[in-house]
Amino acid sequence: MASRDDPLVSWNDGPALAAIREFVARVTDQGSPDFVAPEERVAVFDNDGTLWCEQPMPIELGFILQRLAAMADKDPEPRDRQPWKAAHDRDYGWLGGVITRHYAGDDTDVKVLLGGILQAFAGMDVQDYQAAAHSFLHQGRHPTLRRRFAECGYRPVIELLGYLEANGFTNYIACGGDRDFMRPVTQAVYGIPAERVIGSSNALRYVPGEGRGSIVYLAEADVFDDAPVKPVRIWSRVGRQPILAGGNSNGDIPMLEFAGGSSRPGLRLLVLHDDPEREFDYIAGAERSQEQAEAQGWTVVSIRRDWATVFADPADDGHG
Amino acid sequence: MASRDDPLVSWNDGPALAAIREFVARVTDQGSPDFVAPEERVAVFDNDGTLWCEQPMPIELGFILQRLAAMADKDPEPRDRQPWKAAHDRDYGWLGGVITRHYAGDDTDVKVLLGGILQAFAGMDVQDYQAAAHSFLHQGRHPTLRRRFAECGYRPVIELLGYLEANGFTNYIACGGDRDFMRPVTQAVYGIPAERVIGSSNALRYVPGEGRGSIVYLAEADVFDDAPVKPVRIWSRVGRQPILAGGNSNGDIPMLEFAGGSSRPGLRLLVLHDDPEREFDYIAGAERSQEQAEAQGWTVVSIRRDWATVFADPADDGHG
Repeated sequence: MASRDDPLVSWNDGPALAAIREFVARVTDQGSPDFVAPEERVAVFDNDGTLWCEQPMPIELGFILQRLAAMADKDPEPRDRQPWKAAHDRDYGWLGGVITRHYAGDDTDVKVLLGGILQAFAGMDVQDYQAAAHSFLHQGRHPTLRRRFAECGYRPVIELLGYLEANGFTNYIACGGDRDFMRPVTQAVYGIPAERVIGSSNALRYVPGEGRGSIVYLAEADVFDDAPVKPVRIWSRVGRQPILAGGNSNGDIPMLEFAGGSSRPGLRLLVLHDDPEREFDYIAGAERSQEQAEAQGWTVVSIRRDWATVFADPADDGHG
Repeated sequence: MASRDDPLVSWNDGPALAAIREFVARVTDQGSPDFVAPEERVAVFDNDGTLWCEQPMPIELGFILQRLAAMADKDPEPRDRQPWKAAHDRDYGWLGGVITRHYAGDDTDVKVLLGGILQAFAGMDVQDYQAAAHSFLHQGRHPTLRRRFAECGYRPVIELLGYLEANGFTNYIACGGDRDFMRPVTQAVYGIPAERVIGSSNALRYVPGEGRGSIVYLAEADVFDDAPVKPVRIWSRVGRQPILAGGNSNGDIPMLEFAGGSSRPGLRLLVLHDDPEREFDYIAGAERSQEQAEAQGWTVVSIRRDWATVFADPADDGHG
């Protein structure tokens, strides 16, 4: 049994819920050989596909396309070049093809898209960027789920974050997506403040100025926070080895492996997207992680089986 | 007057103490136009020369030399090469000359020393490194101050950290020194946990392994957290612009400038080492920062004038 009030009402009884409860009880029981001091109870979670929905395309990509389209609307020069052309023409076929060709081993258009992304925000002040992301996430609406982007978090995982915090854990986000894109909403959506968001970032430059020094994005990549970079970035930011990690794809394998340690317990949660009615049903990009979960006894969280509710009811604003 | 119990007993009355009290009162008074919400009350401090003593040489350099000497003691091969030779022979003349020649514009030996430093910890697990740093800082003794390294923190600044925290601030260290070297002691010495230490780091690599994945240092530099890199790293880690910054050298200028913002108040503290009797008297490497403090009205903290006590009494262990 959990050691505090149990807020996990959106979970069905089953092996995933039992594993979570058992682990939390074990590391918080002072009489347990697996007791972990509160300051060492670090939990890390991927974002896209783990904390919120990443289909039919990552939410951040919508933000980038909106920006590219705005650039092409204002200035005709890039309209004939990808990715501005696709963004300007709302050509989702080209964009979908980028991903399809990527899985087929052809990254030519991935490079074209990434080049556009780097241009899209070059020179922008980080605080202006956050304000734009905040607006997009609160005003934009998911194309099929009929809810605002900031309401696309998975209710059971949000409950889990609260349950962990009530049991002395400190939660971090370690996402492949852009760190500064998520930061404006993570406190409201997940209860995780900006300083506990780890993620990818373009390079930054300090622009001096007394009392008005600022930081702007450069047109260069800096960190892509995926696969073996995830544990490295977690260490760099936290200075502690997590004991709990949650993910949903191959890029999360090293982070999941890193949870725990030779002398401490670790819990690894892997979300399986197997619910076409309430969310989506896909395995692309997650094949190896599911195989490893099977081989190593990681805890698979099946959306269809383990979640009684997937999303919270959206706020009723007359547009639902 | 301060809004909470005042723990600043090691400060003399004067302009620095008055500026600190006035600023804290202003940003914590809900009726003030300069009120800042608690989550935005971020304070950042340089470490060497601001939070603790950096003379006659940075404490971390002693740790590195100990490691280089141990390498040369174990293996004769590098004994004829710098910096192992100097470390093995305890040739502080060569080491002092590196700094002298650096200030004279000759960085040949700086590169030799840095090359040795990168080799010194290459392949070491980050947790083993932290354990070694912890031992060094608790067991090693400052050559002239006759106290353990972990007791070389400035008592007035430690009081200031507590005062800020009691007033809703969150304190971070943003140091040019190595992040992981400081982390094992910052909670005990400054009340600042590992996850709030920002600093330089060698490159890291994840070494996979189920339940025993680990992170090791590579023989390459990654981040040198100084000058314009400081505000960039602060933003990357915190996601907020600090309102208070403390430093003591030219490398802190951008961080000090970055405190506050166009629509918010900012307090900039610059420690001046002008007390040869109780600490040290030096300006090398801090000339421009003192000029800028003068020109911009930053708050200079004179050790001789503003601090009634510089260090806490060392723990009495029979070796004092």
